[in-house]
Amino acid sequence: MNYVLAIVAQFNNGSEDVTIKARGKAISRAIDVAEIVRRRFVQEASVKDVKIDTEVLTGDGGVIANVSSIVIYLAR
Amino acid sequence: MNYVLAIVAQFNNGSEDVTIKARGKAISRAIDVAEIVRRRFVQEASVKDVKIDTEVLTGDGGVIANVSSIVIYLAR
Repeated sequence: MNYVLAIVAQFNNGSEDVTIKARGKAISRAIDVAEIVRRRFVQEASVKDVKIDTEVLTGDGGVIANVSSIVIYLAR
Repeated sequence: MNYVLAIVAQFNNGSEDVTIKARGKAISRAIDVAEIVRRRFVQEASVKDVKIDTEVLTGDGGVIANVSSIVIYLAR
């Protein structure tokens, strides 16, 4: 709910678009947040675009893991 | 990995596009599957579009839950 409120605050402060990013298992929560914002709190906002990608996490030993990521563009 | 192989098989059987759908916590796995297919197995395929939505699950007592969903369109 904190994420929802943070995004609602951005729209209320005059932002025309807000970007939500998440990786791995947090992805489904990011979509929940976007959907709750546009359905319940900022109904003139809509999902403009959704992009998925893979982030490569590296450390001293080289590649540690490939992690899926999402970027959700909300705009009104 | 079974989902990856199922999609690779569809492309190998001549499909030009494959749609992946998931709900709730399975969403991050659906993105993993799409990314593995296009990066490792069918490199001429790309993510054409991604849509997110909310599905309303209902039962005898009315609305049971709102569940986020994703649809990923892969095409070559």
